[in-house]
Amino acid sequence: MSKWVYKFGGGSADGRAEMKNLLGGKGANLAEMSLIGLPVPPGFTASTEVCTYFYANGRKYPDDFEDQINDALHWLEEQAGKTFGDPGDPLLVSVRSGARASMPGMMDTVLNLGLNDETVAGLVRNTGDARFAYDSYRRFIQMFSDVVLGVDMHYFDEVLDTAKRERNYTLDTDMRAEDWQAVVELYKQLVQQKLGSPFPHEPKDQLWGGIGAVFGSWMNQRAITYRRLHGIPEHWGTAVNIQTMVFGNMGEDCATGVAFTRDPSTGDNNFYGEFLFNAQGEDVVAGIRTPQPINKVASEKAGVDMPTMEEMLPTLYNELHDYRLKLENHYREMQDLEFTIETNKLYILQTRNGKRTAPAALKIAVDMCREGLIDKTEAVGRVDPASLDQLLHPTLDPNAPRDVIGRGLPASPGAASGKIVLTADEAQDQAEKGEHVILVREETSPEDIHGMHAAVGILTTRGGMTSHAAVVARGMGRPCVAGAGEIHIDMETGVITSGDVSLKPGDVITLDGGKGEVMKGAVATIEPKLSGDFAELMGWADELRRMRVRSNAETPTDAKMARNFGAEGIGLCRTEHMFFEGDRITTVRRMILADTEAERRRALNDLLPVQRADFVELFQIMAGFPVTVRLLDPPLHEFLPKTDADMEVVAKAAGVDALKVRQRASLLQEANPMLGHRGCRLGITFPEIYEMQARAIFEAAVEVQKASGQTVTPEVMIPLAFAKKELDILKSIIDHVAQAVIKESGVTFQYLVGTMIELPRAALRANELAETAEFFSFGTNDLTQTTFGISRDDAAHFLPAYINQNVLETDPFVTIDQSGVGELIHIAAERGRETRSGIKLGICGEHGGDPASVRFCESVNLDYVSCSPYRVPIAKLAAAQAALDEREPDS
Amino acid sequence: MSKWVYKFGGGSADGRAEMKNLLGGKGANLAEMSLIGLPVPPGFTASTEVCTYFYANGRKYPDDFEDQINDALHWLEEQAGKTFGDPGDPLLVSVRSGARASMPGMMDTVLNLGLNDETVAGLVRNTGDARFAYDSYRRFIQMFSDVVLGVDMHYFDEVLDTAKRERNYTLDTDMRAEDWQAVVELYKQLVQQKLGSPFPHEPKDQLWGGIGAVFGSWMNQRAITYRRLHGIPEHWGTAVNIQTMVFGNMGEDCATGVAFTRDPSTGDNNFYGEFLFNAQGEDVVAGIRTPQPINKVASEKAGVDMPTMEEMLPTLYNELHDYRLKLENHYREMQDLEFTIETNKLYILQTRNGKRTAPAALKIAVDMCREGLIDKTEAVGRVDPASLDQLLHPTLDPNAPRDVIGRGLPASPGAASGKIVLTADEAQDQAEKGEHVILVREETSPEDIHGMHAAVGILTTRGGMTSHAAVVARGMGRPCVAGAGEIHIDMETGVITSGDVSLKPGDVITLDGGKGEVMKGAVATIEPKLSGDFAELMGWADELRRMRVRSNAETPTDAKMARNFGAEGIGLCRTEHMFFEGDRITTVRRMILADTEAERRRALNDLLPVQRADFVELFQIMAGFPVTVRLLDPPLHEFLPKTDADMEVVAKAAGVDALKVRQRASLLQEANPMLGHRGCRLGITFPEIYEMQARAIFEAAVEVQKASGQTVTPEVMIPLAFAKKELDILKSIIDHVAQAVIKESGVTFQYLVGTMIELPRAALRANELAETAEFFSFGTNDLTQTTFGISRDDAAHFLPAYINQNVLETDPFVTIDQSGVGELIHIAAERGRETRSGIKLGICGEHGGDPASVRFCESVNLDYVSCSPYRVPIAKLAAAQAALDEREPDS
Repeated sequence: MSKWVYKFGGGSADGRAEMKNLLGGKGANLAEMSLIGLPVPPGFTASTEVCTYFYANGRKYPDDFEDQINDALHWLEEQAGKTFGDPGDPLLVSVRSGARASMPGMMDTVLNLGLNDETVAGLVRNTGDARFAYDSYRRFIQMFSDVVLGVDMHYFDEVLDTAKRERNYTLDTDMRAEDWQAVVELYKQLVQQKLGSPFPHEPKDQLWGGIGAVFGSWMNQRAITYRRLHGIPEHWGTAVNIQTMVFGNMGEDCATGVAFTRDPSTGDNNFYGEFLFNAQGEDVVAGIRTPQPINKVASEKAGVDMPTMEEMLPTLYNELHDYRLKLENHYREMQDLEFTIETNKLYILQTRNGKRTAPAALKIAVDMCREGLIDKTEAVGRVDPASLDQLLHPTLDPNAPRDVIGRGLPASPGAASGKIVLTADEAQDQAEKGEHVILVREETSPEDIHGMHAAVGILTTRGGMTSHAAVVARGMGRPCVAGAGEIHIDMETGVITSGDVSLKPGDVITLDGGKGEVMKGAVATIEPKLSGDFAELMGWADELRRMRVRSNAETPTDAKMARNFGAEGIGLCRTEHMFFEGDRITTVRRMILADTEAERRRALNDLLPVQRADFVELFQIMAGFPVTVRLLDPPLHEFLPKTDADMEVVAKAAGVDALKVRQRASLLQEANPMLGHRGCRLGITFPEIYEMQARAIFEAAVEVQKASGQTVTPEVMIPLAFAKKELDILKSIIDHVAQAVIKESGVTFQYLVGTMIELPRAALRANELAETAEFFSFGTNDLTQTTFGISRDDAAHFLPAYINQNVLETDPFVTIDQSGVGELIHIAAERGRETRSGIKLGICGEHGGDPASVRFCESVNLDYVSCSPYRVPIAKLAAAQAALDEREPDS
Repeated sequence: MSKWVYKFGGGSADGRAEMKNLLGGKGANLAEMSLIGLPVPPGFTASTEVCTYFYANGRKYPDDFEDQINDALHWLEEQAGKTFGDPGDPLLVSVRSGARASMPGMMDTVLNLGLNDETVAGLVRNTGDARFAYDSYRRFIQMFSDVVLGVDMHYFDEVLDTAKRERNYTLDTDMRAEDWQAVVELYKQLVQQKLGSPFPHEPKDQLWGGIGAVFGSWMNQRAITYRRLHGIPEHWGTAVNIQTMVFGNMGEDCATGVAFTRDPSTGDNNFYGEFLFNAQGEDVVAGIRTPQPINKVASEKAGVDMPTMEEMLPTLYNELHDYRLKLENHYREMQDLEFTIETNKLYILQTRNGKRTAPAALKIAVDMCREGLIDKTEAVGRVDPASLDQLLHPTLDPNAPRDVIGRGLPASPGAASGKIVLTADEAQDQAEKGEHVILVREETSPEDIHGMHAAVGILTTRGGMTSHAAVVARGMGRPCVAGAGEIHIDMETGVITSGDVSLKPGDVITLDGGKGEVMKGAVATIEPKLSGDFAELMGWADELRRMRVRSNAETPTDAKMARNFGAEGIGLCRTEHMFFEGDRITTVRRMILADTEAERRRALNDLLPVQRADFVELFQIMAGFPVTVRLLDPPLHEFLPKTDADMEVVAKAAGVDALKVRQRASLLQEANPMLGHRGCRLGITFPEIYEMQARAIFEAAVEVQKASGQTVTPEVMIPLAFAKKELDILKSIIDHVAQAVIKESGVTFQYLVGTMIELPRAALRANELAETAEFFSFGTNDLTQTTFGISRDDAAHFLPAYINQNVLETDPFVTIDQSGVGELIHIAAERGRETRSGIKLGICGEHGGDPASVRFCESVNLDYVSCSPYRVPIAKLAAAQAALDEREPDS
């Protein structure tokens, strides 16, 4: 016979805290608190297995469920010394949901269950408070009718409003016992009228109604939506907790409150909380009355001048404070607890791990470790890596008013206010004059890099989480809202419209890159403060993680920032970004416009010294850490101007006819540039480009090695390969250049030649590629694009619908799609290692900074992840947690 | 001890015909002919294993190779009754290469080896022909010096020219014995002077030089290129044949000739050949003298009035004719043989399967089967499926002069001449006036379909073998040259330039779609004739194949043609093609421009009857054969006009502002349309479109079922899925429509809902997709694009370089890439069958009509292939051959 029902209370319990999956969070903690001797009103929990059974069997209960409920009820009556339905001294219970993960407000609750016309009289007698008893009764009818019987709450509100109007009352507190009694009668008539049957009188019927309503609420629309948003599987189910009622609203010697064992916003080790006399739990949360602080710290924090619990109820406060310490020592976690005082007796109704801000999470974890409550491993596991984002970027003052005029994707966190500019050049000009500007574009391209650098924030009306704007902004640490579709830019007039709001260049807007909001005007921001706790936690993470964490960086600024954040090398240096800086683009364009290899080589020769100087600086900054340089990747047309006017300028600079520029641009134009003439296809067709780049890398290595005496081991990365032969051809060119540089300079150096795995075929043929490649770096952006057949630049048209309709659980450009892209990575890693057992494996897509993806990388045993500088700490922490998870597979 | 050398001659041989891999084609056939008693000059073969050993061991021979050569030489001397290097009666030999596959002219040959100043005297004595002897000697020196010693041929030509000039001779035949003797001396001096050492005198040295040269020639540039072009692996190696010389040039009782056992151009069962008196084999091929026909048939065919061998040498002719029959009966294949008559004795020097035209191959295979020489299985195996293309399309008269002005890809076979038009509308206008036009575009789009239909041929300057133009042209059976990059179209002036040739609309050009050539002016064409043999062979293929062959078709014309070619259903009906016909495009555009679902539904309602009528016609034509209808696939912007003028027209027709059309077009514009908002992503975001299409399909099924009583089982195909959930959502819509139609009509019908597998993720998740999908159709075009990350529209920029540099052996858009795309197909088939054991599997990409790909499909056990109507016979024959191959895995 299965056990469906678990009792708790009176210092013992059938369950315990570890049984969350079975009893839900609330039920498991009630059991645990009972076990450790906290004053929990007794009760019992119908397990989540009942819920699962219920939905697997056409909403029927298990056969022996009713018997077990009856037994438990009988036990409860004994515990409480009261009987369910006893007109003399009725047992009243609450019926609440409690799922494995907290889903606040999503499912149904019924309080005061067990009241009817007879038992209410008993309640009057025992409490000596008729007003309280009838108020409780009418609340029960209202709640039960709404939740169980489906009679909408507003009908009851209307009845109550009428009753008050008739009596010339304005407040509920004006109502006297007889008034409530009259309302009870009206409520019962209302139910009879709406349903054609009377309000259930029999407490047992009420109880089964309540249980059914809670299980039923698991499938209500709110709960389904919440689960989808929070990734909670349907099959988890909810438990139902039936618990003896205690009343904080039975008189002035009653109270109810909530408390946190530490400060949830700062993490300070202060007991924090508030309470209300003569109130029910809901009243504290609802904020109808201003609650009183529990102690001086809370009082100061809230800035209210009200007497504290510590002052007014010192004994009970001390008891509560004892429980605070007991709970923290027992759970070894900051707790969020609810308490009720019924006629001077303290009850603890609930405890759970308290929600906290990112800084608080960090401080609590580090403090608890210092206090010896938890060890480093646990401390590292306690902080959500994604939350570090908040610590690293400025954020908007949460108290400042916001005039939101549009929404897009939260593409790069942080917040910024600035004047609208519509072109990259304008952004640079304005920034040089000291203006803070926000670059607003339909979408950005590599040509806009200087403008993005100059801007304090970037807003695009097209593109997704991994659009050019999003990727570059994250890399630069600039806040970015991408794909704000409701905003329209008229490039001719320069007018920006969103609904009926109309803006023009020069107007100030504010971006919240963490929320994806665009606001009119300036909104105050808060600068981040990095505490010593942060460094300490990162140190522990560094001890625990197995994977290295590198950064994607190409500019000295980014590289330095990456080092500051603790990056252990560069995993992806996108050489093409270097092509856009300053005057270089002119030379690059000369190279593209060349008609002969000789002309092209002349232009490349002019690029060589600049490119070499870039690498010298990167190698110096990275001081011995590995640097992976990706050879030219984007299609050449990305470097050509788009507008006629720009073409004229380029033609003039290159000394050719404008027609020629136009023709070359049109010749290079592609239907699907993502799948076009790019990556190593450029190297195969124009080997001289890769030759120049290899030379720049190797000459830089020689120069730095000579100057610093430090060994430099560049990793030369060939992009977009799908066949071993591509690598053979290009590696032989690279090797040839290396030999030449060694010979010319007389300095020998080591280097690796490897490839990106960013096409499904590359993953499948990894065994062959590894014959030539000395390392693989997974380019998961492109691998995701090709595996799904989704262009990230165009995904905004349908990806939201896909997430909404649950086709995809998460955006695959944010978190690696384990079952598709992940299988390819798995195949590639396995096959690559079969050929070359020690092959170095890393990831350099945007996913390298996403905690869930980092976890996946650990499971495939990659050697490192590489992400944008700002995400390095996130990746490090995620890597440490992933390493811990792999060590304890069932945690 | 390994056997490296194989003897043949004198009615016996160490080898036989089946040992081609070891002995090369020539060596194996020489052995075989010896065995069956043909008069083959004796000799021996150094096997291909020697070649493999040679290259695997730094160009060294196996240890015992020299001994084996010496033994064989000794045996040869016994056979010939002559001794190598014997001044009295020297044995002379030829040294020739002979690889597993014929590589004509690619590798080196040395004749008359064994001659030196002493042995030439013996030759004079024995032949009594000093002129012949010294001519042979000087030829030997020249050939050996060129091939073995590396002294270029032209030096010898200069010496000879001088010699003739000094003697006032014009022809080689003017040279007398003493003249040749003098030239020999000069040749020897030339070698001494060029190399600093004398011409090798010792016959054994000559022999080893010859053997080394032949093995060495396996790696010469010509041979490497040839192997690449013909897909011959390097590791096969070549054999070397050393054979006793016989001389067809020793006097007027000597001759040499070549013959085919049947007519190689028509396949007629006539002995066909030609010969030259007093000549060496090379002379016949070189065409310096006009050879004489061997018999009357050959004489008539060649149109020459010369005495035949049959008339002049009746006994030898009859002997040769006996050998013809003997060879055909033995090899059961048409043979191409070489013979030499030395002083009235007939020798057969070589036999091999004869090359033949496509019609001849067909006729010979069918005839031989009728004659009982081979069975149907063999007959089916003898015809190259790809060659059927020639039989089905008109071809250019090979004798007509061609003024080639540009080259592109041979995108769709056949030939056509017509006037240049630059727009689809112009094509239609001109065609309606009875003009033959060639549509010339940078590339085509679905909007051009009517113009492509109207044109007799299509020329594009961009795009690859599977560009829109190529695919549609093949489907329509229109010749097409695609991606002719040297041709430039100035759309403003209408001037077309290619190099210094300039053309304008109205000028006539000719396309050779089989060769990819563009010619100025009209070139005469030849219409195809389909013989009864063709039908007979196809009948045999139908008996033998396992896979069904369907056709890709959407118009009644195509569907009828497909049926005529024997298609067993439609594997891919691209509904979007129907959207462009006539006025429909206006309604489609109204649908796209709609602002609300209601407006969109109104437009779709107007499309419903037309779309239904289309399906009715297709179902009628297919008369019970399955029809797979793919729901709307391309991105919506493909249906909108591109130019401002066209937008005005559309705006007017749709009754909206032109600005709106422009805005919608710009909103729908995509960076990578191939990876954009298309396929079932349209169905998810605009379910009403698929709803309308499903209704049209089902209502058509009902109508045809009612009218004909024949069961119609439509197969509804969902494109571009990558997740089961997409199929769940869309199948539920389709099922819902089906139920509604059944209810409304009172007619029940069966239908299947399936999906295309055209994304890597779909292949990987096939186990899940098969839970919902009742069939899979592999869309190998898109699957190739995504697996390789290559846009077929842009591939022309680099794919040629990839093929050239051997990165890819074949164009993956022509033949399925087995090791990448193929693995995904394999995975999908396996996983799909794991979930749904009987799942119907087919292929509907362009590869369905490619023989090598069809073979792959058989190996994965697909149920059917689907291809364009013109390729149905090719696919059928290929399917039959593939089925045979699978049955006999080592054939």
